[in-house]
Amino acid sequence: MKVAVLMGSPSDHEKMTPAAEVLERFGIEADVQVVSAHRSPDRVVAVASRAREEGYVAVICGAGMAAHLAGVVAAHTTLPVVGVPLSGGALGGIDALLSTVQMPTGVPVATVAIDGAANAALLVVQMLGIHDEDLASKLADHRDELSGRLDRFVPRS
Amino acid sequence: MKVAVLMGSPSDHEKMTPAAEVLERFGIEADVQVVSAHRSPDRVVAVASRAREEGYVAVICGAGMAAHLAGVVAAHTTLPVVGVPLSGGALGGIDALLSTVQMPTGVPVATVAIDGAANAALLVVQMLGIHDEDLASKLADHRDELSGRLDRFVPRS
Amino acid sequence: MKVAVLMGSPSDHEKMTPAAEVLERFGIEADVQVVSAHRSPDRVVAVASRAREEGYVAVICGAGMAAHLAGVVAAHTTLPVVGVPLSGGALGGIDALLSTVQMPTGVPVATVAIDGAANAALLVVQMLGIHDEDLASKLADHRDELSGRLDRFVPRS
Amino acid sequence: MKVAVLMGSPSDHEKMTPAAEVLERFGIEADVQVVSAHRSPDRVVAVASRAREEGYVAVICGAGMAAHLAGVVAAHTTLPVVGVPLSGGALGGIDALLSTVQMPTGVPVATVAIDGAANAALLVVQMLGIHDEDLASKLADHRDELSGRLDRFVPRS
Amino acid sequence: MKVAVLMGSPSDHEKMTPAAEVLERFGIEADVQVVSAHRSPDRVVAVASRAREEGYVAVICGAGMAAHLAGVVAAHTTLPVVGVPLSGGALGGIDALLSTVQMPTGVPVATVAIDGAANAALLVVQMLGIHDEDLASKLADHRDELSGRLDRFVPRS
Amino acid sequence: MKVAVLMGSPSDHEKMTPAAEVLERFGIEADVQVVSAHRSPDRVVAVASRAREEGYVAVICGAGMAAHLAGVVAAHTTLPVVGVPLSGGALGGIDALLSTVQMPTGVPVATVAIDGAANAALLVVQMLGIHDEDLASKLADHRDELSGRLDRFVPRS
Amino acid sequence: MKVAVLMGSPSDHEKMTPAAEVLERFGIEADVQVVSAHRSPDRVVAVASRAREEGYVAVICGAGMAAHLAGVVAAHTTLPVVGVPLSGGALGGIDALLSTVQMPTGVPVATVAIDGAANAALLVVQMLGIHDEDLASKLADHRDELSGRLDRFVPRS
Amino acid sequence: MKVAVLMGSPSDHEKMTPAAEVLERFGIEADVQVVSAHRSPDRVVAVASRAREEGYVAVICGAGMAAHLAGVVAAHTTLPVVGVPLSGGALGGIDALLSTVQMPTGVPVATVAIDGAANAALLVVQMLGIHDEDLASKLADHRDELSGRLDRFVPRS
Repeated sequence: MKVAVLMGSPSDHEKMTPAAEVLERFGIEADVQVVSAHRSPDRVVAVASRAREEGYVAVICGAGMAAHLAGVVAAHTTLPVVGVPLSGGALGGIDALLSTVQMPTGVPVATVAIDGAANAALLVVQMLGIHDEDLASKLADHRDELSGRLDRFVPRS
Repeated sequence: MKVAVLMGSPSDHEKMTPAAEVLERFGIEADVQVVSAHRSPDRVVAVASRAREEGYVAVICGAGMAAHLAGVVAAHTTLPVVGVPLSGGALGGIDALLSTVQMPTGVPVATVAIDGAANAALLVVQMLGIHDEDLASKLADHRDELSGRLDRFVPRS
Repeated sequence: MKVAVLMGSPSDHEKMTPAAEVLERFGIEADVQVVSAHRSPDRVVAVASRAREEGYVAVICGAGMAAHLAGVVAAHTTLPVVGVPLSGGALGGIDALLSTVQMPTGVPVATVAIDGAANAALLVVQMLGIHDEDLASKLADHRDELSGRLDRFVPRS
Repeated sequence: MKVAVLMGSPSDHEKMTPAAEVLERFGIEADVQVVSAHRSPDRVVAVASRAREEGYVAVICGAGMAAHLAGVVAAHTTLPVVGVPLSGGALGGIDALLSTVQMPTGVPVATVAIDGAANAALLVVQMLGIHDEDLASKLADHRDELSGRLDRFVPRS
Repeated sequence: MKVAVLMGSPSDHEKMTPAAEVLERFGIEADVQVVSAHRSPDRVVAVASRAREEGYVAVICGAGMAAHLAGVVAAHTTLPVVGVPLSGGALGGIDALLSTVQMPTGVPVATVAIDGAANAALLVVQMLGIHDEDLASKLADHRDELSGRLDRFVPRS
Repeated sequence: MKVAVLMGSPSDHEKMTPAAEVLERFGIEADVQVVSAHRSPDRVVAVASRAREEGYVAVICGAGMAAHLAGVVAAHTTLPVVGVPLSGGALGGIDALLSTVQMPTGVPVATVAIDGAANAALLVVQMLGIHDEDLASKLADHRDELSGRLDRFVPRS
Repeated sequence: MKVAVLMGSPSDHEKMTPAAEVLERFGIEADVQVVSAHRSPDRVVAVASRAREEGYVAVICGAGMAAHLAGVVAAHTTLPVVGVPLSGGALGGIDALLSTVQMPTGVPVATVAIDGAANAALLVVQMLGIHDEDLASKLADHRDELSGRLDRFVPRS
Repeated sequence: MKVAVLMGSPSDHEKMTPAAEVLERFGIEADVQVVSAHRSPDRVVAVASRAREEGYVAVICGAGMAAHLAGVVAAHTTLPVVGVPLSGGALGGIDALLSTVQMPTGVPVATVAIDGAANAALLVVQMLGIHDEDLASKLADHRDELSGRLDRFVPRS
């Protein structure tokens, strides 16, 4: 069970690292690749088209500006595709958000927040946790941990 | 196997109907409910908290303006939650989009396009199709159909 | 007479501190808590639901991005809820502003400027000053002080 | 106990009517006036400056475009001022929203949604309900009614 | 000498018709096709990859919302690609504009105004007119005509 | 012949200094004052109401966020009022721009670019230069100087 | 004493008519012309360059979308230029507003609200009223009339 | 064969340098000039009007804020004009983007991404490569290089 974590540029690597970290924390293999819808389009088509047969269960795509990566991947697979709009560029990521989320009927991209790579991975874990009791239980523990961390916070007086 | 399709107001019903239609076309039961994060918050908490144990596999939430429904549901379940920002109101839905997608780390909402109810349902089908050969096959057929419909289009001369 | 000052994340603490400071300056107790509509939702519901009976007179909520905190609190109390959209994140706070202010009919949030925690507290003082001569008088003094400070400013020649 | 409901133009009357209706439903007198921060500024200053001594408990201000009415009123009174940004004009009300909500430290305006006149009135009722058991009880009933109306909604099959 | 005029959906046909009309007026063949970056992606790749060898001199692409068509075509050809962001959808075309124009370094799309199909064609004519005296002369005539039409306009008194 | 240069806060002083500098360069007296539409509203009304009789020929107003200063001044004088929206705050000045420029019919504010204090002063010089040959001549010289400065620029090879 | 009222397209005529009407009401001649910065640029340069010597006292320019007309005119004259951004096109006029107001240092355009042609004319009257007692008096009367019209408005009960 | 690379201000020089670099890499002469649509308008008209006869094959124009340079140049030549909206100023370049791209029918500007000077040059190379086998071949090599650089990237484990 592995998830492809794709990003459009080497410079996106730091922002996308949390996706791989979250997946691995839940025991899911993350296969991280730099492929660009515009600069290495054939490789994107190849990765997307063969994703299901090669054993991937989902694809996470991070890209900035005119962020076409998630949409192009979604066009070439019926696996769920999660899009992470990345900030960077002059407009703070609103361009990447709209380019990722405003997909036409028939080809959805599950879009998370700008720079929300960790949430992209959590979303994939949730998908896998629909029928996997163990993951579902780990997700519940993760929520308890999040909540506990806030509860223990004591504001400076 | 059933999916909860929630919306914040009776007036959202028409825009959310495609979600139920797509689910049913793929043989998945859609349980449509009008519940509001602000006007019937206890019911939202109840529906979300018990969703997994009552056999739902995912929750689709459509809401407009300060669209909190998907986020609130996501806070009370570890099932995947798909958010459909709805247009309506003075700002054309950009408020609903940002309110739905910009979730904090730990609690993702899989956001689709403004008024993208059909895609929300397709996304759920894709999640279920990860390990369900039959659904995966139906999704592939659906794509062929989309593509074929475009191929047969003949522009007026 | 006390006011709950809630914020969605420990990292919001510095931006929300002026709310507590202003309240205390006017002799009103500020009870500062970090609770998240998404990460500790049960605690939010608990705090909001019991706010009136526990003697709070208003709730101030600061949150960023998809800022649902004020809306969720407002859904669980009939006390006045003041929302402070916080900047931070890629979009400068416009997401938090729209998520906070665009509430549906029936459940208002009194929204102040982005990062306007001091004004949130002043607004609560104004609410309490409707029927409290002493607070009303202190508010008038505060205005005189604001105005005087400007009048004494001498531009560098 | 009366509330001033001000609006910048006769053409705003229909959008502001819900404010008066909600106030009256809760037994609060609404004094509706058309005054403009730009076209009848002396009257605005007069109304705002004397509002407290003339027995008003709050001021609701609706205006569109460069919506200065609420801010100008707030500058001349220490009563709570609720601002209703109105749509209309070429930009759908985002201009009115920003002009109303982005007030400087010291002079808050409690801003509600674009065209949210009913919520402006509810907010005033909530302010008055802080110490008025009867209003608080009516507000709770109103919430039950909102919630009940949604619960009774049966989606068309 | 022919130009491919592509659009993402049959519903874009009316908005893209001026591109074909302008091309034909300048004696250039327009080959109009409906192909979608998301719904018929293989055909888009095929059309773009072979465009140069099949004798096209440029590709005009019109698409709305998350408008990926021009970017995907540009990724598969070194011919000039002109992008026409189309309005439609909830956001008036700003999503299509940003998705079309904000391309990464290495793969440009020559973007024209929202719904600017006629200008897309004129731009192609200008490209061809760099070294084609006849087209350059026709372009100059066209400008004179535009200017003359304005000069003859007599405002109603 | 003097011009009032008003700004809403001492922190705006640096951004507004170019207005005074430009006026003085053209031999026009600049009377710089810090007055706030919200924090010292009575002084604003006083300054604006008496501006004409006290010999001012125009008023330049710089303010940020919900920038009401220019509009309030314009409401109390029939002298030309030039508004300078100031950046600062979370939204980069778009709030100040819309609050300044979107004035209702009857009360114009001549709005210049965000942080465009120098241009505000030039605009006043242009107004005075309509009938003043000497100023008109100095304005022409200033343009020649601007143009000459560009012409002398030699790009680094 | 005459004012040039320019607009970029015959279709702008209706929106710009109030400028001429207001000028004429104040006894100022309006010379209305349709000239385009893009389609009849030589005529724009000619009109602007000779405006002062031909007796114009100011130029009002209305244009939509990439509204360059006011900026181009301002580049060729030292008379005051008033810009009216026009709505129309897909983006509601925000493109025209930014194209008109965001001028570089040295060449201001006095920008009024989107579709604010009447205010553009009033602004010119204010410029001329700086030293013209009669116009100043008429402007004061006009304000009284505006204010009186509001005062006489009686809300429907 | 030479291309004019124009920019509105000496401060734009660094952002526009990639245009000249890319052109030179492809063996095309770049003639870099600082000319402003507003501050040296006569020179802009002169450069644009004579561009074709002086042997230029295209014009690249970079400008920020109310970026009129590309539009004004396009109005005075029938050569292809490529516009580069530049960031800088308070709004991050969205003003420059809209001012550059939203041209009226009849006078297109080929707009690239904000700060996309390198892509502007590539676009011109693509135009010239329509009929120039050698440039077309170099463009294909350049794409291979882009793609290869991504393929060789190895994410840090």
